[in-house]
Amino acid sequence: MRILVTNDDGIYAEGIYKLACALEKLGEVWVVAPDRQRSATGHAITMHHPLRAEKVKLLHTSFQAWSVNGTPTDCVKLAVEALMDHKPDIVFSGINKGPNLGTDVLYSGTVSAAIEGAILGIPAVAVSLADYQNVCYDYAAEFCTLLADKVINHSLPPDTLLNVNIPNTTKEKIKGVKITTLGVRKYKNSFIERIDPRGQIYYWLGGEIVDHENGEGTDIHSIQNQYISITPIHFDLTKFDLIDQLHQWNIQKA
Amino acid sequence: MRILVTNDDGIYAEGIYKLACALEKLGEVWVVAPDRQRSATGHAITMHHPLRAEKVKLLHTSFQAWSVNGTPTDCVKLAVEALMDHKPDIVFSGINKGPNLGTDVLYSGTVSAAIEGAILGIPAVAVSLADYQNVCYDYAAEFCTLLADKVINHSLPPDTLLNVNIPNTTKEKIKGVKITTLGVRKYKNSFIERIDPRGQIYYWLGGEIVDHENGEGTDIHSIQNQYISITPIHFDLTKFDLIDQLHQWNIQKA
Repeated sequence: MRILVTNDDGIYAEGIYKLACALEKLGEVWVVAPDRQRSATGHAITMHHPLRAEKVKLLHTSFQAWSVNGTPTDCVKLAVEALMDHKPDIVFSGINKGPNLGTDVLYSGTVSAAIEGAILGIPAVAVSLADYQNVCYDYAAEFCTLLADKVINHSLPPDTLLNVNIPNTTKEKIKGVKITTLGVRKYKNSFIERIDPRGQIYYWLGGEIVDHENGEGTDIHSIQNQYISITPIHFDLTKFDLIDQLHQWNIQKA
Repeated sequence: MRILVTNDDGIYAEGIYKLACALEKLGEVWVVAPDRQRSATGHAITMHHPLRAEKVKLLHTSFQAWSVNGTPTDCVKLAVEALMDHKPDIVFSGINKGPNLGTDVLYSGTVSAAIEGAILGIPAVAVSLADYQNVCYDYAAEFCTLLADKVINHSLPPDTLLNVNIPNTTKEKIKGVKITTLGVRKYKNSFIERIDPRGQIYYWLGGEIVDHENGEGTDIHSIQNQYISITPIHFDLTKFDLIDQLHQWNIQKA
């Protein structure tokens, strides 16, 4: 089995290191990841400047590792279509530092890298540790090996992937695994206004989370209750049940 | 009516100028757009450096215009949550130079800006002119005024938006309007490898379009046949019909 590993926290992040080392037990690991922190890049791709891939050596590892001056989506595209001599059997993106839940998956570089895997026809999994402080990736990495095995054995339908969030705690304290839907995560007071030393206004994106309508069954509810959440995702944004209604609008060309 | 207009080609692009001028007939226009070309940024947001918004004057216009050093998504967030004193009634993103069809909407800054409008609870429309050469935005801009009227009168359900692609031709040559689904747009030979003057490899993202399974009813088919395509879109990526199947995988925490 050949496993492509990427992330959006950058190739030297702890989460990708732990993930790649764990997955090495299952097969041949290739790490192809951004040269620096590229979180919140969504599904951005690099069209307006060229990409470079530098072969690097991650300490105490023997797998191939490439550092790319692009986004997580670029990394998956470049790995599959230029760097690797044949397609990986599975793509793992992560382990992200911080959750990727609900509406936030749209902004997530971690999830977008896995979406790109699915677009390229490869089973893909995005994995996030649901915390920013005192993070410990050990159990999350172990869980990924179990999940990789399940994905390879059962296979995913075309154009789908899994978005996984794992509580930042020990195996004993995790209550179990839930198959979930994406919840709704919105923010209020998103911008913090400041004045620079030259009297000019600037804005920091901040914001307090407003989680609502996130009952049982959502990824947000699962994480809040110390369960691992696994949400099946696809990337066809068509809102099929609105098509009939739009026909009734009777939109003409003039 | 208050209309927020943004894009991903940058505030000085012709498409946004034509769109804003056309929509001014319907109400108060605010233009809040990236300070430069930001296409293919997907749903990226700017978290790691602060944003600045500079008030600018677009020639021969009287509406408010702000140039923002961020992504299209940043522009919508910042406009609604910091720059405007009350929410717009509708968000228009475009008119993009080039189509945003099928799978490509995932990479599109134009579409992502409209998605952000929908996330913020505002009816939103992304508009693209389906060509890169000899572009003429006149009819597309006129069509946007008709469509804005329809959207305001009928209203869109929560968390949905419209993705519109318009053939680059005259009103007479356009055959009509189709309500569509997103087609499938994939690429082959995506990377062009080159060698720099110092002997180092670099890669340009290129690629030839492979459109398949794009029969009648898809946005790609409509544009190929000189119809305007209007695709209803949502942003809940949950693949609901895979949930039962995943339960049967019996994934345990260890």
